[in-house]
Amino acid sequence: MARVVVNVMPKAEILDPQGQAVVRALGRIGVEGVADVRQGKRFEIEVSDEVTREQVEKMAEVLLANTVIEDFDVIFEA
Amino acid sequence: MARVVVNVMPKAEILDPQGQAVVRALGRIGVEGVADVRQGKRFEIEVSDEVTREQVEKMAEVLLANTVIEDFDVIFEA
Repeated sequence: MARVVVNVMPKAEILDPQGQAVVRALGRIGVEGVADVRQGKRFEIEVSDEVTREQVEKMAEVLLANTVIEDFDVIFEA
Repeated sequence: MARVVVNVMPKAEILDPQGQAVVRALGRIGVEGVADVRQGKRFEIEVSDEVTREQVEKMAEVLLANTVIEDFDVIFEA
């Protein structure tokens, strides 16, 4: 078995209202110095050793990310 | 400025219906060999150099994660 991580983040040019809500809330808990927050998704996936990077990329494109507004990274862990 | 990543994942003993929905959908797109999917959140945060790990951990505990059902990791990137 191998462990794969897929990170899905909003594209840089896309507004991220969830991240902006976090920035606004920071004042309430007294944390200063945070310039920006972007919120995305992290998938931790257990796959058999035969599963290829191409298959995981297909899965990310079709199921995990909306590639119109999101970018993704596929990371095979040791 | 420094870049911090906070990963928030459901605790191992917590059911993850979003991840399970992804597993069930894989059959429809012809991907085999995926044993498990867990879905969490990834935050990419830009902070000034004075912001400490303790401050980011407080932010994660209060704003980013529900620590009853989720674990988080704080990673300061170079």
